[in-house]
Amino acid sequence: MNTFGNNFRLTTFGESHGAAIGGVVDGFPAGIHIDTDFIAGEMQRRHDNVLGTSRREPDEVEMLSGLLDGVTLGTPIAFLIRNHDVRSEDYAALQRLQRPGHADYTWEQRYGLRDWRGGGRASGRETAARVVGGSIAKILLCTRQIAISSKVVEQGAAGEGDSAGGVVECTITGLKAGYGNPVFDKLNARLGAAMMSIPSAIGFEMGAGFAAARMQGSEYIDRWNPDHTTQSNHCGGVQGGISNGMPVVCRVAFHPVASIAKPKECIDNKGNIETLTLAGRHDRCHVPRTAVVVEAMAAMTVADFLLGEK
Amino acid sequence: MNTFGNNFRLTTFGESHGAAIGGVVDGFPAGIHIDTDFIAGEMQRRHDNVLGTSRREPDEVEMLSGLLDGVTLGTPIAFLIRNHDVRSEDYAALQRLQRPGHADYTWEQRYGLRDWRGGGRASGRETAARVVGGSIAKILLCTRQIAISSKVVEQGAAGEGDSAGGVVECTITGLKAGYGNPVFDKLNARLGAAMMSIPSAIGFEMGAGFAAARMQGSEYIDRWNPDHTTQSNHCGGVQGGISNGMPVVCRVAFHPVASIAKPKECIDNKGNIETLTLAGRHDRCHVPRTAVVVEAMAAMTVADFLLGEK
Amino acid sequence: MNTFGNNFRLTTFGESHGAAIGGVVDGFPAGIHIDTDFIAGEMQRRHDNVLGTSRREPDEVEMLSGLLDGVTLGTPIAFLIRNHDVRSEDYAALQRLQRPGHADYTWEQRYGLRDWRGGGRASGRETAARVVGGSIAKILLCTRQIAISSKVVEQGAAGEGDSAGGVVECTITGLKAGYGNPVFDKLNARLGAAMMSIPSAIGFEMGAGFAAARMQGSEYIDRWNPDHTTQSNHCGGVQGGISNGMPVVCRVAFHPVASIAKPKECIDNKGNIETLTLAGRHDRCHVPRTAVVVEAMAAMTVADFLLGEK
Amino acid sequence: MNTFGNNFRLTTFGESHGAAIGGVVDGFPAGIHIDTDFIAGEMQRRHDNVLGTSRREPDEVEMLSGLLDGVTLGTPIAFLIRNHDVRSEDYAALQRLQRPGHADYTWEQRYGLRDWRGGGRASGRETAARVVGGSIAKILLCTRQIAISSKVVEQGAAGEGDSAGGVVECTITGLKAGYGNPVFDKLNARLGAAMMSIPSAIGFEMGAGFAAARMQGSEYIDRWNPDHTTQSNHCGGVQGGISNGMPVVCRVAFHPVASIAKPKECIDNKGNIETLTLAGRHDRCHVPRTAVVVEAMAAMTVADFLLGEK
Repeated sequence: MNTFGNNFRLTTFGESHGAAIGGVVDGFPAGIHIDTDFIAGEMQRRHDNVLGTSRREPDEVEMLSGLLDGVTLGTPIAFLIRNHDVRSEDYAALQRLQRPGHADYTWEQRYGLRDWRGGGRASGRETAARVVGGSIAKILLCTRQIAISSKVVEQGAAGEGDSAGGVVECTITGLKAGYGNPVFDKLNARLGAAMMSIPSAIGFEMGAGFAAARMQGSEYIDRWNPDHTTQSNHCGGVQGGISNGMPVVCRVAFHPVASIAKPKECIDNKGNIETLTLAGRHDRCHVPRTAVVVEAMAAMTVADFLLGEK
Repeated sequence: MNTFGNNFRLTTFGESHGAAIGGVVDGFPAGIHIDTDFIAGEMQRRHDNVLGTSRREPDEVEMLSGLLDGVTLGTPIAFLIRNHDVRSEDYAALQRLQRPGHADYTWEQRYGLRDWRGGGRASGRETAARVVGGSIAKILLCTRQIAISSKVVEQGAAGEGDSAGGVVECTITGLKAGYGNPVFDKLNARLGAAMMSIPSAIGFEMGAGFAAARMQGSEYIDRWNPDHTTQSNHCGGVQGGISNGMPVVCRVAFHPVASIAKPKECIDNKGNIETLTLAGRHDRCHVPRTAVVVEAMAAMTVADFLLGEK
Repeated sequence: MNTFGNNFRLTTFGESHGAAIGGVVDGFPAGIHIDTDFIAGEMQRRHDNVLGTSRREPDEVEMLSGLLDGVTLGTPIAFLIRNHDVRSEDYAALQRLQRPGHADYTWEQRYGLRDWRGGGRASGRETAARVVGGSIAKILLCTRQIAISSKVVEQGAAGEGDSAGGVVECTITGLKAGYGNPVFDKLNARLGAAMMSIPSAIGFEMGAGFAAARMQGSEYIDRWNPDHTTQSNHCGGVQGGISNGMPVVCRVAFHPVASIAKPKECIDNKGNIETLTLAGRHDRCHVPRTAVVVEAMAAMTVADFLLGEK
Repeated sequence: MNTFGNNFRLTTFGESHGAAIGGVVDGFPAGIHIDTDFIAGEMQRRHDNVLGTSRREPDEVEMLSGLLDGVTLGTPIAFLIRNHDVRSEDYAALQRLQRPGHADYTWEQRYGLRDWRGGGRASGRETAARVVGGSIAKILLCTRQIAISSKVVEQGAAGEGDSAGGVVECTITGLKAGYGNPVFDKLNARLGAAMMSIPSAIGFEMGAGFAAARMQGSEYIDRWNPDHTTQSNHCGGVQGGISNGMPVVCRVAFHPVASIAKPKECIDNKGNIETLTLAGRHDRCHVPRTAVVVEAMAAMTVADFLLGEK
């Protein structure tokens, strides 16, 4: 299904080359001013060749509902982004070819058919709706003095015509102790699901992460200060699935995107291998632009817990 | 909440030192024989000092409902494990002390009070209910020729009185192409949530994982064979959130558990630091016994997708 | 929340005098042709002074996503209806007045503020999105030879400047035995929730309904024919929460709408009673036009069960 | 599925003649004392030949989890009721016969097999778990000064060997204005679903109910007092799906149960009609004992809204 969250809920829709993409945010409290300039700014951060495509669109966000004089009504906030720069003919060869590293084959196995125009819904373009949802979540977090930031901590260099991956670190500050659930719906589990749902995400870790697997317990355990802050933050701000008041820190690894200029061996609809060379500009590394998507998912995850508190 | 899954649903309950722990599996199809010996065997794999405790219980599983002559009725399958070897007095000091590396403080912030007896629900003992649920899921998977296996691929050595972590790799074979959803409910996202919800999990990766972040796209992309198998499996069997028919491979990193014999600096209920030394045996490394929990979560995740298919 | 259903899911949005109303249908299977003329026809049935308002709009439905050449992709089907004929100034007095029989007061208690322009989201206009969702559900049902029909079985006559209620009967034919769940999610329970969520619904009954409370068991029990049809249908086609293959029959009672021309005693924002007389045309009885909404809710309820079957 | 509610969640399990029935309450706040005598008293109200069976059991409720010294921990509250007085041999003829008015046939169509022992899960016995859940919900409501009461307003007289139905009215007092949601999850819609899920419920109405369909609007509309109470309560305490602070009033119609002493024409497993006469005592009218189940469903519905408030 295309809904994220339980209390703060984002439902998204839209194909890359359809009429529009967009979403509906449900569960947002009434009485909060929505700064559309802030949303536009976040969209700008995501902009330019997003996730490996060369398409340039203004990505103007139209707010359709849920607001009166810019203030939320407690009703669903729907938004729309029209698709303009659509040249589906560039993709005509893809009607009969399944590309390696793409979702062409799996999508057909799942649904029986696929939208070959620009990747359809299996396009990085769907992350635009996540960024709008994340912006709205950030506005809520801001009213609680919670901030989300990110940085690229690893970035591959790509050879000519090739692509590279990287790692984004995301930090949530200002989240008080006590958010999260102790068994299945741990804060870290929900963050993991949120991050792993981003296109090309392939790894996730909290705090010391995989390195913690090589530590001794006496080294790993974060020592208390009397005020319940800790002297290290190996656990990444979460204990037993619940925030402990320290910054919540996670990292997301992204593999290189599959859209490269180099020739690729596809399978055609008769089961033969056929080499395809895609024209057009391609991103060498999409990771810097993915950071705002990472933040959006973090913001919506935290908003979901905030709105679920009793 | 204490429910895992949407179509295959496990709801668990129970505190470490309460009357019992257990669970309810809902959504399981009618007409499938449940081999209780298999469940007992899976429980045995989990047994002995699980997750760092020295408690030894027979962990006998009583099936309460959902079966007629050993065959499922399509109704909820409830099960119960009585708690026997309960020596809550060992934990009396914990009524007023918050241990580092444990959920004592976060639990109190979340709920206002906490069950200090053996960790209450924030105890590794809750994973026993996951293993029963996972066993039942595996029985379903077996009818579809899907198998789950795991191995410890990294294991720390622990010094005297200390603890160590490690990494478990899990492989799902026999899952056909077409399972998973393309946006938020990706197969890899759900697996990530499932694994990160296991006590002491701190990292998760699919296929090539964090190493993929350092590859070039041309190296990372798995090349087709004409039958839609691939020559490598860097993506871990999932493309665009949907299984591609190759083995689904993931790894889970576990940090060392906090229950160590070495002295630990706790905070008492007046905000003072007090050093506590816990008597009793402690696991040096709990990771080998966690493997069956990893498999259980994988099995339930896959079962959830299988039962959700239209 | 503003989502109906679990497997067939309709999320709606929009205020009466905002930019637009609309919705997103999620979970719809791929490969089904959507006849937009049929949707337009259903909207026409709902049209003219819907639910007591005198607003006349073309109610043109724009499909935004989920389709390729008119065929569903398995992705969310989003749709939009622009609001055109908006004269919010007619409602200016309502900024400070709470009308009896309306949701003005309860909405303010729930959200702290309210959209006074045309009732905001507490307007019968939101049912337009239900009708679109219901039309899409009917297209699915049609592929399974399931049909939904309705008739007005009671209709009040209204005096000058007054309003009247009535009763709509809805019949679902072609639904095979075996749909529904035996405990909380009974087919009749879900139908009840669906119908009671329609604006101004105040009663719901299956089959013989309230009259069954006065029957003897030997009279009430529907006698078998050898082919499992029954000689009467007092139960309304549902036994133990599960369809039995007979027509599913229910009735929904609607109270008169509160929008009447006669003067009404309102409460102003100082707690004083003030008499308000609303100008404009008003429906005497909205029930005939509600029938298509009843059908829409029935269609979506059945579609939800169909798509949930394993 | 066998879960009721979103925030206050009751998951039930158990067949009539299996080892036990029971349930798990999830989402209940920490720090509330659970009076087990109160629960026992509610069970007593339900007792004696409930829903047409002659089985007499002590129905002792064992609490399994979620409590420390009788106070809730915020963790799942599991409970168990062992089945003792099981004489499955009485039902042996039912292995091959489908009774009219029962769920024998629909259950087989739904699941492919059925538990013929005492009706399995399609037995009125499952309502025992609802009453325990409702008792726990009432304890929560009591902390908010909300009370639930009921009375039988219609009760059929049954001839010798026959059964009769009736109508139960339920009133919720003390619920403040502002609970409920405006579109699909209206308070009245959720109440309707809750009530229609009770075995043998066949009709539901709020306030003036079906009679409101015959009123004029000017008669139906509840007039304000300046304090926002109303001079009548035709709407049953709900406006636009949200409570208005007046008592919430609904009525539930029950058809006569199908378990009658008179001969019944069944269908055997070869498709022939065969007349069956059931021995044993049978209730003439189960409605008086259903009242506590009606209250339980009302209590859980309100608790669900209370715990969902932001």
